[in-house]
Amino acid sequence: VSDGRSTRVQGVTLHELTQARDDRGSLVAAEVGGQVPFEPKRVFLVFDVPGTEVRGEHAHRRCHQFLICLRGSVNLIADDGESREEFVLDSNRIGLHLPPMTWGIQHAYSADAVLMVLASDPYDPDDYIREYDEFLEALRG
Amino acid sequence: VSDGRSTRVQGVTLHELTQARDDRGSLVAAEVGGQVPFEPKRVFLVFDVPGTEVRGEHAHRRCHQFLICLRGSVNLIADDGESREEFVLDSNRIGLHLPPMTWGIQHAYSADAVLMVLASDPYDPDDYIREYDEFLEALRG
Repeated sequence: VSDGRSTRVQGVTLHELTQARDDRGSLVAAEVGGQVPFEPKRVFLVFDVPGTEVRGEHAHRRCHQFLICLRGSVNLIADDGESREEFVLDSNRIGLHLPPMTWGIQHAYSADAVLMVLASDPYDPDDYIREYDEFLEALRG
Repeated sequence: VSDGRSTRVQGVTLHELTQARDDRGSLVAAEVGGQVPFEPKRVFLVFDVPGTEVRGEHAHRRCHQFLICLRGSVNLIADDGESREEFVLDSNRIGLHLPPMTWGIQHAYSADAVLMVLASDPYDPDDYIREYDEFLEALRG
């Protein structure tokens, strides 16, 4: 696994994806054990998000996520309970690894933004922590 | 695993993805063991493909693929050595499972097309069969 570029937020890393561009078109790839440090069990796409909307605002107890902005741009705030950093995701050549127990907020979606998320676990509502205070408590616990 | 909708081509199936749309935006999701019948080890995106270009024209010996056209449209021809069918992929709500030993051709990419492919194996040039005659021989062998 490539370590990626570390950030101010514990465990959050940025990864350059594999690229190939020629006359026949462009290809961008990410491999498990390469850029992606877990086996995806779910993939989802978020799009048509109003620019005023704020999404996320939760942490996952166990689920890893790997985010790639396929088109347009979106701002992602990551927070480990002590440090917080904001990332502008505006390139499909960059993946961001958001490990479990990281508070995440997405905002400022451009009108054309398409965000792809690889997740290490199937959808499970019980895996979400939706209150920041509860997140801080869980970190201490 | 949902069986999906079978086609004229052996093992090729179409799968409706999970959708959620509200004022906050749209979400489309596919889960391993749900729509996706394998554990992805690689994800790649194909885009900026000239409309005149023909891509694919190969089979994989072992690798499964699951294709979703995220934007625009692309035509996919699948061929099991006996039957051939052409699919217009023009919705991010549909995934197509292309099992190993299926000849695949993509063409008529729209200018804005973005094709996402989940693959069951890391990239391996030895997994490709690039000649149709060799593909037919391998099927018989």
